[in-house]
Amino acid sequence: MKCRSCRAKAVIEVRRHNAGFCAECFVTYCRNQVSRAIDEHKMMVPGERALVAVSGGKDSLALWDLLVDLGYDADGLYIGLGIAGYSEPSGTYARAFAAQKGTRLVEVDLPRDFGYDVRSGAAADKRVPCSACGLSKRHIFDRSAVEGGYDVVATGHNLDDEAAVLLGNLLHWDLAYLARQRPALPGRDGFPRKVKPLVRLSERETAAYCILRGIDYQVEECPMSAGNKHLGYKDALNAIEERSPGSKAAFYSGFLERGSGLGAEVAEQEREGLHPCPSCGAPTVAPLCAFCRLVERAARASSDKGEPPKRIPVAVATVGSGLGPRDEDPGGQERAGGSGT
Amino acid sequence: MKCRSCRAKAVIEVRRHNAGFCAECFVTYCRNQVSRAIDEHKMMVPGERALVAVSGGKDSLALWDLLVDLGYDADGLYIGLGIAGYSEPSGTYARAFAAQKGTRLVEVDLPRDFGYDVRSGAAADKRVPCSACGLSKRHIFDRSAVEGGYDVVATGHNLDDEAAVLLGNLLHWDLAYLARQRPALPGRDGFPRKVKPLVRLSERETAAYCILRGIDYQVEECPMSAGNKHLGYKDALNAIEERSPGSKAAFYSGFLERGSGLGAEVAEQEREGLHPCPSCGAPTVAPLCAFCRLVERAARASSDKGEPPKRIPVAVATVGSGLGPRDEDPGGQERAGGSGT
Repeated sequence: MKCRSCRAKAVIEVRRHNAGFCAECFVTYCRNQVSRAIDEHKMMVPGERALVAVSGGKDSLALWDLLVDLGYDADGLYIGLGIAGYSEPSGTYARAFAAQKGTRLVEVDLPRDFGYDVRSGAAADKRVPCSACGLSKRHIFDRSAVEGGYDVVATGHNLDDEAAVLLGNLLHWDLAYLARQRPALPGRDGFPRKVKPLVRLSERETAAYCILRGIDYQVEECPMSAGNKHLGYKDALNAIEERSPGSKAAFYSGFLERGSGLGAEVAEQEREGLHPCPSCGAPTVAPLCAFCRLVERAARASSDKGEPPKRIPVAVATVGSGLGPRDEDPGGQERAGGSGT
Repeated sequence: MKCRSCRAKAVIEVRRHNAGFCAECFVTYCRNQVSRAIDEHKMMVPGERALVAVSGGKDSLALWDLLVDLGYDADGLYIGLGIAGYSEPSGTYARAFAAQKGTRLVEVDLPRDFGYDVRSGAAADKRVPCSACGLSKRHIFDRSAVEGGYDVVATGHNLDDEAAVLLGNLLHWDLAYLARQRPALPGRDGFPRKVKPLVRLSERETAAYCILRGIDYQVEECPMSAGNKHLGYKDALNAIEERSPGSKAAFYSGFLERGSGLGAEVAEQEREGLHPCPSCGAPTVAPLCAFCRLVERAARASSDKGEPPKRIPVAVATVGSGLGPRDEDPGGQERAGGSGT
């Protein structure tokens, strides 16, 4: 197979485009796809400050690399989740990339800064680990962007992620989640815009991008995600894609073009019920937002065990009635499937 | 496991209801599910005449049996498709059931009455076999119901069929198909209502129903359907159902409850462009409806081979600008996945 662009020997085939690329042209292809997604969905413009949610995995490191190379002012944010055997090497990959690229990495550590890790937080708040993790990350993305004066939070959700989340939202016909599942959510009331510049690239492509660019990344899946529903939806769509290459891209782009009105009313009604959390300022319908509740419960569980109290999270004083993640997450980006880092 | 209803030993488990049933209570459960679907979606009332589309498979024979036992006036319609090794035994099962039950079976034979079989019709009309088959069956259901003075055509689409068709329609975001994917489509302009009374039963349940009721049915899948997309969608949903029993039912019922507005405008626009086919009276946007075109092309292909001409289909003289199956089927029930017989 030859490279579609330069006719050299291809090193990768992209079946849904019925095309092959050599290493150099594949990197250009990835840049073009990201550029196109950014323009199509008005994600950001040069001169704005972006905070990239970085996990140390292929998607987030590819995203960071691509944004910097496309000329965007993009810092990284790494959140240590306290997952034994997983978080530590993940952080190492993120730091190594930042050092190599000469970019700035902001770090937050759940155990150090908020007194819990994913496992203990999930147990204290009676959630599955992926739910506690997603809630924590979305909250901290928002808060860190506000504190650091960033215009936009960029996450590494790729086409496979978005198609799987869409399938999950449709299997439940969750209109509020469907209304919020957009590649770019506008900023509101002091909270930053949220964008997903990788929605035109599959996870196989972000992995190939990292390999071809010499970016070392965390290859392991998070040990806490095994068996979660999102992975089941991915498997189901992979089987369909295998039979009909292009199915996922058609599914997701068809939704953006023709399904975009779904749930708009429900989402608007939900937004009307929001008020700022008295502790942190994030929008919520409950007396205390879901994140502050989790932190409080985790602190109680840990003091029950006789452990010393940890630092209490600081309120985001600059924020009024913003639209960010909150109780069961009507302000967040979607139901399940990780937070795109 | 014990029967949910009478506490006797269960012979079948229905995982999505977290219930087991003995043979007798399972038959009652099936009747109740069909009764509930008929009432919920206003499918028909006692006294109306129903024509059941019967293929000789488990779904259509279970449907026919259930409707008769529920007291409905239901005749069967069997269409011989001319598929070697498959159609002949299928017809035998349908006739045996009718004889055993003492009900009337109307028969139409594609080769005898229309001069083609599924394979030759598909080849002449440059369609995949499942498309030529579905088009033919939907047209003949409608026409036979009109000619026989039936109020309603009942097809054996079960929950698995409907969920798989829904997934296919969503993967393509085909709004017109989504708008028409209802358990009951009202009659219009002389064409009968179309209903799917098995939408609350899975295909495992219709198979068990036949076994427990001693109904012999065609067990083989149609040899022409191997590898079609609909079966791929079923596999994908089966994998999801296996992890989370109840997913399919929630997907389909959620769509009916919350996705029902999808595509209404598109479907209305399509309907406005319809006119009666000059040859048969079925609604179409083309000069000749898709069915009459298929018949014409099949006749031409067969005369090119020097075969004698077959009987030319008779126009449905009683029908004006009805809404039935037509060109690429905006009047039909859905995109793919068989015709529920």
